[in-house]
Amino acid sequence: MRNLCVKVSYDGTAFNGFQTQPYGRTVQGEIEKAIKKLSGETIIIIGSGRTDAGVHAQGQVFNFYTKSSIPTERWAVALNTRLPKDIVIIEAHDVPEHFHARRSAKRKTYRYTIDMGKFPDVFGRQYRFHHPAPLNVEAMREGLRHLIGKHDFTSFTSIHSTKPHHVRTVYEADFVQEGPILHMYVTGNGFLYNMVRVIMGTLLWVGQGKLAPDEIKTILEGRSRSLAGPTAMAHGLMLMNVEYSL
Amino acid sequence: MRNLCVKVSYDGTAFNGFQTQPYGRTVQGEIEKAIKKLSGETIIIIGSGRTDAGVHAQGQVFNFYTKSSIPTERWAVALNTRLPKDIVIIEAHDVPEHFHARRSAKRKTYRYTIDMGKFPDVFGRQYRFHHPAPLNVEAMREGLRHLIGKHDFTSFTSIHSTKPHHVRTVYEADFVQEGPILHMYVTGNGFLYNMVRVIMGTLLWVGQGKLAPDEIKTILEGRSRSLAGPTAMAHGLMLMNVEYSL
Repeated sequence: MRNLCVKVSYDGTAFNGFQTQPYGRTVQGEIEKAIKKLSGETIIIIGSGRTDAGVHAQGQVFNFYTKSSIPTERWAVALNTRLPKDIVIIEAHDVPEHFHARRSAKRKTYRYTIDMGKFPDVFGRQYRFHHPAPLNVEAMREGLRHLIGKHDFTSFTSIHSTKPHHVRTVYEADFVQEGPILHMYVTGNGFLYNMVRVIMGTLLWVGQGKLAPDEIKTILEGRSRSLAGPTAMAHGLMLMNVEYSL
Repeated sequence: MRNLCVKVSYDGTAFNGFQTQPYGRTVQGEIEKAIKKLSGETIIIIGSGRTDAGVHAQGQVFNFYTKSSIPTERWAVALNTRLPKDIVIIEAHDVPEHFHARRSAKRKTYRYTIDMGKFPDVFGRQYRFHHPAPLNVEAMREGLRHLIGKHDFTSFTSIHSTKPHHVRTVYEADFVQEGPILHMYVTGNGFLYNMVRVIMGTLLWVGQGKLAPDEIKTILEGRSRSLAGPTAMAHGLMLMNVEYSL
């Protein structure tokens, strides 16, 4: 059977997350409905991972098996005409049958964005966390550096994490500032539930002077969620891309 | 009485335009409600001009007379906490009593934005007109040049214009391309009803090869709306700023 791998962007504002839920509108649900309309097939797509309610994606990836003979290059256009406007398919590829969007993923990059302007930019309000008080970005960058590498991220995940172990590798992490807009980019081999948002919430404490940058190391080593800062709001988070070695 | 001049940005998506209407949510209506909550005064604000349903503003300007003693520097923060999130006040100034946001305006700049990407950028979909077919931007630029100067813009305004005469001066007009994003900037001493949108709709014909750039001159001289192209969709239009000589 054909295995199709699809890259999709979505504005998470009006979704109850990526994954199908007992109630609420989800990205997965809308995509499965569009596939049904297009090929007539009732399919369950496999996402690279969930994103929470309100979280956005520039490059989420999913795969699914289809018997349809629709040419690969037609899928993106054909699905887009059947999808609501807050989901846009970017590309589709045929992949080997063993490809699995979650299990085959090698690296993921997330971005968390803060608007440090006195007043929020109204056109970015749904994609940035507005924090008008001054932040010490250099201290935040120094704190973030402690998280690069292979660590047990128990302190930086929700207590509701269902994962058997919490060791993950962060390959790259940095802040990029463009005027009042501050982006945190984090690339890793996988992310725990709420991990980027807890990292951001804790680094906000560093930026506000409530924590010294080196305390990030202490928190990491303490392996307890209670040591870290709050979970930053969902709407500042964006799944940028998922990488595979095919 | 104090005369306050206020600069405001808004996302026009969920508004039935700037100006108070018999029905529908308007920017003016929301601002007047916020002023009422803040100072207790029932006030009618004076905008620099209307913007249509769906049109956005980075720098709309209005003024109003108030007896309130709230310090000038507090107005922006105080109003923002009382306004819905799709309206953000940027600054407020005391101005002389004769200042009138519409009559005192010297120059206005509008921007119309097209997303020429194969698929729309989902995060800009409410602020850009998606036109995936190729456009000859150089031809559009050449056509646009014919509109610079003092002209009768009857061909480029709605037949529902209520203005006594249609002579306006366009001081500057150009296209700026950033990858798949194409902005048209137009600065003039005043704009007729739908003027920027009709200009854009007609230049799209030029970009699509349906009209030669020089035909813009012929259409201008013909002084008839029927000669020009369609009115481009509202959501690509943004009022950038209004200039005054105080």
